[in-house]
Amino acid sequence: MSSASQPAAVVLLSGGIDSSTCLAVARQQHECHALTVEYGQRNAPELDAAGRVARSLGVVEHRIVELRFDWRGSTALVPDLGAPQVPRSADAVAPSAPPPDGVPVTYVPARNSIFLALGAAWAEALGTPHLFIGVNRVDYSGYPDCRPAYVEAIQAALRLGTRRGDLQIHAPLMELTKGQIVRRGTELGLDYGLTWSCYDPQDAPAGPRACGLCDSCIHRKKGFAEAGVPDPTPYAPTDRG
Amino acid sequence: MSSASQPAAVVLLSGGIDSSTCLAVARQQHECHALTVEYGQRNAPELDAAGRVARSLGVVEHRIVELRFDWRGSTALVPDLGAPQVPRSADAVAPSAPPPDGVPVTYVPARNSIFLALGAAWAEALGTPHLFIGVNRVDYSGYPDCRPAYVEAIQAALRLGTRRGDLQIHAPLMELTKGQIVRRGTELGLDYGLTWSCYDPQDAPAGPRACGLCDSCIHRKKGFAEAGVPDPTPYAPTDRG
Repeated sequence: MSSASQPAAVVLLSGGIDSSTCLAVARQQHECHALTVEYGQRNAPELDAAGRVARSLGVVEHRIVELRFDWRGSTALVPDLGAPQVPRSADAVAPSAPPPDGVPVTYVPARNSIFLALGAAWAEALGTPHLFIGVNRVDYSGYPDCRPAYVEAIQAALRLGTRRGDLQIHAPLMELTKGQIVRRGTELGLDYGLTWSCYDPQDAPAGPRACGLCDSCIHRKKGFAEAGVPDPTPYAPTDRG
Repeated sequence: MSSASQPAAVVLLSGGIDSSTCLAVARQQHECHALTVEYGQRNAPELDAAGRVARSLGVVEHRIVELRFDWRGSTALVPDLGAPQVPRSADAVAPSAPPPDGVPVTYVPARNSIFLALGAAWAEALGTPHLFIGVNRVDYSGYPDCRPAYVEAIQAALRLGTRRGDLQIHAPLMELTKGQIVRRGTELGLDYGLTWSCYDPQDAPAGPRACGLCDSCIHRKKGFAEAGVPDPTPYAPTDRG
């Protein structure tokens, strides 16, 4: 699948569908160094998923960076007393209605900027300009740091702010729908059973189960349905008929 | 010195001369939230200094963010087996000669981008656009992430990548010499005896002493000399005559 002559790349990997597919795409042309940031996020099974995906796709190294930052009150993705709740779909099919400003409550302030700056640091230490991120604007357009203009701007800033000055941020999923992403990863042999999306996992004896109701679960289901690919996700049984 | 009606600001604070002076400047017009990042840096006394300076200048809150990132081989500022050594001045007056590309070995890849992204995240959580950083290009012009063009570019990127979109990065020391910085802070009542600069502190019974020979010590001495202000730093005795 790869050879030692492939150029190195750093790939941001959360363990969800998008970043895992992004890694599968990057592996086509690069020796990959996967970077996962542990920042206190609610969906801890994602971290395990990142490790499974990294191993299955044969990365050179998988680093988990611990970031002890206090996100108090600023996002629903990191549990704290004052944070908003993870929204749930009313019908288990459509995502919840977005807030008035269009930015989901699961938005984490400046998250991709923090991750890309860390990725740029590692890429520079490795001596490569290549940095991959699995952002896409189609299904999550409410996140400001998933837009092409943002990616261009942060690339320009990180070029000016590093020694090499030639950073290349690759966002190969930018224009794909969730269905197209799942189809692409499936073609590349990615096992989506290894990935994790749910923001609100439920404990179960055989391991965590996806709630099936949070926005991330809804988008995931939609992706598999659109792609015509069986959904391998273990969903929790729900009360709703 | 301040009132509750002052707008909030996040101030990046390492505990050195520049960031401490920047905090003193910011305190003139803002309620300040100081942000220190603990990233395994060699000069641990800097962290204590940051706490002392934050208290003395009356910040609302001082957060220390732990970042467990492996900087292996990429900077002299974080100790590891493969890292270059902190350079020492040959005559205890002039800094060491810079490497051929002009970037000091104490450069930390993408450091200010990581710090500014974290600062932008906190500022957004606090509901303020104001973020201060004590970079200046005069005495440390070898660092790519201390230049005005970089600060402008990262501000543009962080505006695009956050919900508010109105981040203002203030770099009030950008055009000052080290001497002008020390004079400014002294006018503002900052006690530089609380700050710490040395990259290579020496243990001593009464507390750590500055080596007096690393580039950071040389710049510090030069600042006090230029400003005509007594240097309160406890330097270690050296062998040199």
